[in-house]
Amino acid sequence: MRVNRQRLMTEIEKMASFTDAPPPAVTRVLYTPTDIAARAYLKSLCMEAGLKVREDALGNLFARWEGAEEGLGGVGTGSHIDAIPFAGAYDGVVGVLGGLEAIRSLKESGFTPRRPIELLMFTSEEPTCFGVGCLGSRALSGAWNAEQLAKLRDAEGKSLDEARAESGFSGPLESVRLPEGYYSAFVELHIEQGPLLEREDIPIGLVTAIAAPASLRVCLSGQGGHAGAVLMPDRRDALLAGAEIALEVERAASSSGALDTVGTTGIFNVHPGAINSIPSRVELGIDIRDVDGERRDRVVAQVIGAIQAICERRGIGYEIDTLNADPPALSGEAVLAALEASAQELGLAYKRMASRAYHDSLFMARICPTAMLFIPCKNGWSHRPDEYAAPEHIEQGVRVLARTLARLAG
Amino acid sequence: MRVNRQRLMTEIEKMASFTDAPPPAVTRVLYTPTDIAARAYLKSLCMEAGLKVREDALGNLFARWEGAEEGLGGVGTGSHIDAIPFAGAYDGVVGVLGGLEAIRSLKESGFTPRRPIELLMFTSEEPTCFGVGCLGSRALSGAWNAEQLAKLRDAEGKSLDEARAESGFSGPLESVRLPEGYYSAFVELHIEQGPLLEREDIPIGLVTAIAAPASLRVCLSGQGGHAGAVLMPDRRDALLAGAEIALEVERAASSSGALDTVGTTGIFNVHPGAINSIPSRVELGIDIRDVDGERRDRVVAQVIGAIQAICERRGIGYEIDTLNADPPALSGEAVLAALEASAQELGLAYKRMASRAYHDSLFMARICPTAMLFIPCKNGWSHRPDEYAAPEHIEQGVRVLARTLARLAG
Repeated sequence: MRVNRQRLMTEIEKMASFTDAPPPAVTRVLYTPTDIAARAYLKSLCMEAGLKVREDALGNLFARWEGAEEGLGGVGTGSHIDAIPFAGAYDGVVGVLGGLEAIRSLKESGFTPRRPIELLMFTSEEPTCFGVGCLGSRALSGAWNAEQLAKLRDAEGKSLDEARAESGFSGPLESVRLPEGYYSAFVELHIEQGPLLEREDIPIGLVTAIAAPASLRVCLSGQGGHAGAVLMPDRRDALLAGAEIALEVERAASSSGALDTVGTTGIFNVHPGAINSIPSRVELGIDIRDVDGERRDRVVAQVIGAIQAICERRGIGYEIDTLNADPPALSGEAVLAALEASAQELGLAYKRMASRAYHDSLFMARICPTAMLFIPCKNGWSHRPDEYAAPEHIEQGVRVLARTLARLAG
Repeated sequence: MRVNRQRLMTEIEKMASFTDAPPPAVTRVLYTPTDIAARAYLKSLCMEAGLKVREDALGNLFARWEGAEEGLGGVGTGSHIDAIPFAGAYDGVVGVLGGLEAIRSLKESGFTPRRPIELLMFTSEEPTCFGVGCLGSRALSGAWNAEQLAKLRDAEGKSLDEARAESGFSGPLESVRLPEGYYSAFVELHIEQGPLLEREDIPIGLVTAIAAPASLRVCLSGQGGHAGAVLMPDRRDALLAGAEIALEVERAASSSGALDTVGTTGIFNVHPGAINSIPSRVELGIDIRDVDGERRDRVVAQVIGAIQAICERRGIGYEIDTLNADPPALSGEAVLAALEASAQELGLAYKRMASRAYHDSLFMARICPTAMLFIPCKNGWSHRPDEYAAPEHIEQGVRVLARTLARLAG
């Protein structure tokens, strides 16, 4: 079994050229023409590899290699290709194109799987468009039902149904959920998005758990007015309440008692946004995570309490929407064992670790034994244009993945 | 002499229909098609009134009624028609269309001025486009020279020369400065943009001084990254530094020792602005004003010191541009006296007051005796869609203005 590193790196580079930001930045948002073009490229590669391609009503893409024995649950691998604004070339893409390369290397080696092996490209792992991450895997796994999905609106108020119809994805949302037993195992290859593997010079991370993510949308409304004319004691400035809230998110996450707690205010939209106008409205997007779901919930509660207190003191109206608050996931021991045995066979060092970033595997773990495989990335950076994973690390990840798929499907 | 209130209110309403925001909000930004259409409407009204219209190389518009005696400096009145995003129908417009109505009422009464009377519509009183307010009057008055103007760039990097050329305003920037003695006096009618006249039920404010404005553009650069993956102690989040700075602007303005000091962070742009991404860059627009120029400068210095300290503590890079830091203006006693005598003749109560908002009169005061005339506005609101001035207050302001123009030009 031989991984073709050159072919894979060329494809990763080509995938990065589908971007709405100036290279090397990658912006590839759900259902944009750029996203659709990138999907078409991926489909062409899957078909060249002799895989049977299908897409569901949301745009989740399945590329299937049938197994020798009929009626068995498949072994899935994959990730996502969408990218937040000004992101990089590796987050998600390494798991999709690396998963394809693993399958190709098995095929080219003459291996015959007993179970089907399937590459999965999930729709909208990133929350850019509808405010909630892992849209495709939430739906596949039944974590969200069709009714919850139908309520989603993008920033312009467009529904998920309208958006997917415009991009050619039709059919009832109910049809997206996978039948029971569809997969017997799922494994996802991903860059670490943290500094630990690089720091300890270890090529392979075996992910034992995925941190519990929560995100809040907070809308603040104060009183606008002229920046010169309204005296300081008469103001109800929505931006200043937002500033206090962002600092409280930092304080609450930093003082949870565990290094694993992180909190971020990544969205801070100000209206009207003129230098001589007192801000009347601010929209905040807040993200809070922890490997411990209960500790995460305590930090979320602390932030919500602070929002209420800050807004009352400042005379600011507020609305808080909990966009998602998902439990953490534990990896399937059988899949972890297959990953570990593969790394050992290849003589690669590895460590067990938790993922603080969340992934579609968080939801796949609800329907089948699931585990993730991390490779190092430069400085732990991701979600930025200079995100980088070395070709030898990518190749090592794909080699472990290919052997693991063979073990699970053989 | 009779003011036609109905005609004037109809014109104010029509002017509000030139907007790029949903009514009643008014967004009318320099050199946009909407701004150009509003200018054309104003020109048509001036020509109907028998005034001679000319525009200079920046788009400042002059509508002239020649005086009986040649070679005398004119009496100017006017204001601006541009509006920041989501503003209202009265700020600036009352001084332009009210000034026109004052001139029409004098003409219709059979009055013959000895000096020319000229209506002036200033280009870009609002700083929306090039970041600096009072563009037209800065240039007219020579407060800024052609070289300073030529350096201006809008948010897309377009120069003032390119922007004005695209809108049909050509000619050297040097030609905008008015010759010495062009005006013998200038008077500007405006809504108060503060609550004092309404609170005390006084229809007329005589402005004795205009507060000194300063504005800063602050660019912060930290380290981006994944909101789940980067631990709190490893972060250099530009948004959190911006939040501390905005709160420091509030603190410095509130603790200056005088109620007249105001400080506002009206612009707060976050990059990349995704919920699961640590903000790497933030741009702040800060506005600080005081009727006391030295106290204003002390507050600006305090804010700059705080920016440096906050950014050093957080490991954030920063650039601070002082967009403008203008001295305050004192009104001309002769113009104030003419305003006072007119209000007395009409039996209207009045009070002397300072303007904390700044106006083109701040710069006109550099080249001729200048004063302003305020009328009440609802709740002191401005720069918001529900900005409102009552028709009877507008009419009273125009009547005082008409008599004042007659006094100064007669």
